[in-house]
Amino acid sequence: MEPSTLSFPGDLAGYRRLYAAGENPARLLRALRRHLAACDDPGIFLHVADEATLEKSLTALDPAQRGSLPLWGIPFAVKDNIDVAGMPTTAACPAFTQAPTRHAGAVRKLVEAGAIPIGKTNLDQFATGLVGVRTPYPVPRNPRAPGRVPGGSSSGSAVAVARGLVPFALGTDTAGSGRVPAGLCGLTGLKPTPGAVSSRGVIPACRSLDCVSIFTQGVAEAWEVFAAMAGPDAEDPWSRDIPTGAPAATRPARRLGIPDEASRPRFDPAAEAAWDAALARLSGLGLELVPLSFAPFFETAALLYEGAWVAERLASLESFFQSAPAEAVLPVTRGIIEANGRRHSAADAFRALHRLEELRLATRPIWQVVDALAVPTAPLFPTLEDLAADPITPNARLGTFTNFVNLLGLAALAVPGPARPDGLPAGATFIGPGGGDAALAALGLRFEAAA
Amino acid sequence: MEPSTLSFPGDLAGYRRLYAAGENPARLLRALRRHLAACDDPGIFLHVADEATLEKSLTALDPAQRGSLPLWGIPFAVKDNIDVAGMPTTAACPAFTQAPTRHAGAVRKLVEAGAIPIGKTNLDQFATGLVGVRTPYPVPRNPRAPGRVPGGSSSGSAVAVARGLVPFALGTDTAGSGRVPAGLCGLTGLKPTPGAVSSRGVIPACRSLDCVSIFTQGVAEAWEVFAAMAGPDAEDPWSRDIPTGAPAATRPARRLGIPDEASRPRFDPAAEAAWDAALARLSGLGLELVPLSFAPFFETAALLYEGAWVAERLASLESFFQSAPAEAVLPVTRGIIEANGRRHSAADAFRALHRLEELRLATRPIWQVVDALAVPTAPLFPTLEDLAADPITPNARLGTFTNFVNLLGLAALAVPGPARPDGLPAGATFIGPGGGDAALAALGLRFEAAA
Repeated sequence: MEPSTLSFPGDLAGYRRLYAAGENPARLLRALRRHLAACDDPGIFLHVADEATLEKSLTALDPAQRGSLPLWGIPFAVKDNIDVAGMPTTAACPAFTQAPTRHAGAVRKLVEAGAIPIGKTNLDQFATGLVGVRTPYPVPRNPRAPGRVPGGSSSGSAVAVARGLVPFALGTDTAGSGRVPAGLCGLTGLKPTPGAVSSRGVIPACRSLDCVSIFTQGVAEAWEVFAAMAGPDAEDPWSRDIPTGAPAATRPARRLGIPDEASRPRFDPAAEAAWDAALARLSGLGLELVPLSFAPFFETAALLYEGAWVAERLASLESFFQSAPAEAVLPVTRGIIEANGRRHSAADAFRALHRLEELRLATRPIWQVVDALAVPTAPLFPTLEDLAADPITPNARLGTFTNFVNLLGLAALAVPGPARPDGLPAGATFIGPGGGDAALAALGLRFEAAA
Repeated sequence: MEPSTLSFPGDLAGYRRLYAAGENPARLLRALRRHLAACDDPGIFLHVADEATLEKSLTALDPAQRGSLPLWGIPFAVKDNIDVAGMPTTAACPAFTQAPTRHAGAVRKLVEAGAIPIGKTNLDQFATGLVGVRTPYPVPRNPRAPGRVPGGSSSGSAVAVARGLVPFALGTDTAGSGRVPAGLCGLTGLKPTPGAVSSRGVIPACRSLDCVSIFTQGVAEAWEVFAAMAGPDAEDPWSRDIPTGAPAATRPARRLGIPDEASRPRFDPAAEAAWDAALARLSGLGLELVPLSFAPFFETAALLYEGAWVAERLASLESFFQSAPAEAVLPVTRGIIEANGRRHSAADAFRALHRLEELRLATRPIWQVVDALAVPTAPLFPTLEDLAADPITPNARLGTFTNFVNLLGLAALAVPGPARPDGLPAGATFIGPGGGDAALAALGLRFEAAA
């Protein structure tokens, strides 16, 4: 095969087949590098590995370890708020650009498992958004829904996987940035229990909540990546020792909590219909669906942007915001982080912390009643025009079923579900208690298999 | 015996001996009630149980349970920022007075164990202080050190036990309020791991840090009270399930971390000399003393009053402070809580939270090197005149070795040590990792036995 005729697998299995058949990772990934650099959507990658950086990765890849390293020779894309040594980190804010000399903790684990970082992807600036259009770069085009948003903030990573350009990509997820784009691009999005994966080397959104997340085509591959990436990091104060377990070793879920009638937003009839189809699929699996009031979850979610927690975003960026010229930051981003962030006093922040602790207590008994929650990943599918007309409301609505998850220390997994009547992708997200990642993966595998 | 000739035991053992000899708790505690109400130091008790409340407690005490309830018939005093049903809670601020209808979680556990609340004790207003003089009521007199402060904020509880008026008393400890008064009054002060004892029904100082603490004459009795009081409380968001274990079942401490030369403050030669004697006693026990830099602990401590954490005090009191007339709150208290608390933004609060998480990470390896820390409970012993001249500095200095403990989630135990050359009491405090309460008690028992 000549490089020009190579086709690039869209999943881990495809790469493994090629390598098993004798394909050389250097030849394949050099070609992939050129392919990505010439991509017809300039909004996906903000940076593609330069030749020297790729060669360094290839040199480090020991052919003898092909059988022993779980991700040997697998390329992956990295959201551009996560450090990859040798590539700039911009957080989609050129004036903010940093030149890291070390991989982020999560990237390091993947590289140790044999994976090869191939480029950095676009995002809502400073990971603040769920739409993917809040970027000074071109907006990544949703390959599954022309004219619609790709979802964010991990827009480029989701689109890269949805296009089959890379078999997996890293996102981050503070308020839903690893789930919403998965839902809108028809992918699996695994958002681990907070602390299960190192967040060292991630540009902070809300430092106490930020999770590195994974986009893949399917659940089994997301779990493989997670298993390679998880584990305590002695350099990360937010890292926790959370045993990953294995999906097959978990007790199968029997009861799922779902939003009751009063907790179901009515934003979009097509999303509603897709959700009804997802519920039917879950019922068909023999799962008991238990309607629950989501009021305590919605109250938790309100702490994040409507309450004092928005100041956690400012906490990490305040000195940059003060020194950067006005035009360096998108007006919508500066408005959310700086204007809203400054509105709150330290006493407000502590009251929010106290209220969160009460809500954690109030919601804990739910896991005695149900094994997991099942929610629509995205209860609407905004067009690019919607966002041009109103940059705030559709974005806020997209977080309906995502914003509360990290505040409560929960794990979540977004899985493609039955499509909407208009043919656009839709998905279900399963949410479980902290440390319950493996049980969610087992549930996701069942849901996926029933498609 | 006539009530007028009764003497009241100063410890649990004394009460048990009387009951074993046939003494009637109703007769004894009615007399104690009258004795406390007529106490020659009006600064100790802000409220003594009225007849009806005591009779209700006595009626609930089942004579058949004398052998089975660990604290059967034992009276105790309660710091007046902890709710006891039937007694007002003032937090030493008359305008704030509340009339609780339920016991605080900790009090409830003690009552279930057979103990009988006999009165509410004076404190630094809103538990903000380490001196015991920040009260609109008379200052409790330190029975061991005339003219000196009793220590605070749990001043009344410490003095009540030091005088032998009650065999044990509850304090609270956010920054050191359960340790400093123990040190200055020559008592044992047990400050549990945060969350090990319910803090429901405690007027918040810093809600995320507040611990209910115990004053007794000796370590064994403090442990008995702790064992009766500890355990998760489903109504308290800050409660944690922390197994108490037993002192005898712990591995004996071998290495203690002590402040190195640079970390030893030189406030008071007599306190210095007492500390040297305490170190000699520890060495005599065969313990290896490892000098450590306390810089990360001191940096942690600075977050509490010099940093944004002071706003956590304001978080719970802001609406009261806004509505209360100026004269309702002591100027020094209002200055610390309101003026300092308002100085910080929500972003400051989150930055403080982030820094604390880094300091938790940085200090965690210490427990691989030493079994516990040993520090002077109080590195100075201010006079009442010192505080009249400067209400801030001596108070701040008293927190040198206490302020960082709850921020780091640690357990602590203050134990009387060798006296100062001037004859005043001095003490050592042992500090251990969260959940290490039993190991500290074992260490405290060894230190005490070597006296």
